[in-house]
Amino acid sequence: MKYKVITITREFGSGGRTIGRELADKLGYKFYDYELVKKAAEESGMAEEYVKDHGEDANGRSLLSFMWNNAGGSISDLLYIAQRKVINQLADEGNCVIVGRCADYILKDRDDVFNVFIYADEDFKEKRIVEKYGERPDSPKKRVEDKDKRRIAYYKYYTGRKWGDAKNYQLSINSGEVGVDKVVLTILNLL
Amino acid sequence: MKYKVITITREFGSGGRTIGRELADKLGYKFYDYELVKKAAEESGMAEEYVKDHGEDANGRSLLSFMWNNAGGSISDLLYIAQRKVINQLADEGNCVIVGRCADYILKDRDDVFNVFIYADEDFKEKRIVEKYGERPDSPKKRVEDKDKRRIAYYKYYTGRKWGDAKNYQLSINSGEVGVDKVVLTILNLL
Repeated sequence: MKYKVITITREFGSGGRTIGRELADKLGYKFYDYELVKKAAEESGMAEEYVKDHGEDANGRSLLSFMWNNAGGSISDLLYIAQRKVINQLADEGNCVIVGRCADYILKDRDDVFNVFIYADEDFKEKRIVEKYGERPDSPKKRVEDKDKRRIAYYKYYTGRKWGDAKNYQLSINSGEVGVDKVVLTILNLL
Repeated sequence: MKYKVITITREFGSGGRTIGRELADKLGYKFYDYELVKKAAEESGMAEEYVKDHGEDANGRSLLSFMWNNAGGSISDLLYIAQRKVINQLADEGNCVIVGRCADYILKDRDDVFNVFIYADEDFKEKRIVEKYGERPDSPKKRVEDKDKRRIAYYKYYTGRKWGDAKNYQLSINSGEVGVDKVVLTILNLL
């Protein structure tokens, strides 16, 4: 197959991680999400919990607050560099699906990478996060908004790119409209 | 089928029109591109040639120059209104594929519309327009850039939306990477 790496950029609650895992299963590829966290933790010397919480979410809901908090280099930058190194190594090894962490941008100069963006309508995402992660004190609406804003700010800061710009991916698809299983089939057919 | 209307927003040279026509053939749907021009010409009383040239391209390469030229209402606004009326009528009749002309935005409040964005890398588009439309005094690169900038400015002016923002469509797909035929199959499978 032409594509040795598949990256999944996803909105919180869109089912992107599930889609990535099923794709990896079907293709016999390795799946990197928490595994990548572990490797980045080893590479950076930071705690897994820290990497998990700060490896793709800004520590503030806006780009401006993230830039302000992050001014002059910071632990976040060191973590980004460690993750970038791990992601490049994983891509060199090949045959893997990588979820999140700006992998689409980090691997943009390779021609064996298929980049997918998964998103969904608000209702779908809010319902899904409650099913997956349970109730929390904050409303589902606030949880989705908050998480996505942090991800968008992080992505903008480290890539300079606009989140969800179709042209950064070979495929962008609304998983809420189409259904998670059909998204997996669609990607498999395209590969 | 749930979707009575398919809209195709496409970059110049991406093969979006061909994809739309093949989809319509396969589905037994009507295909509206030049036919829509004709209807909009009748509705507006403007010449077909004028509608064809100004129905989705700004008369300037930037939003600013278009706004300046178009200030205070203009023929362009009258044409937009006529096209919008025609597009709404076609959607009410149903079972059709509509290419371009902000149809995705005009029909955004319906739930029986499947919106697709088709784009491609520059090389693919430049090669394709020379094959399809022949050589011209301007370079293929300039022709693609020029046409897309006019479309983007027109789209921004009348919809307020950013061209190519994945979330405005159910599906966005790189036809150059995937191949025109495979895009048609992918959409058919999703519908």
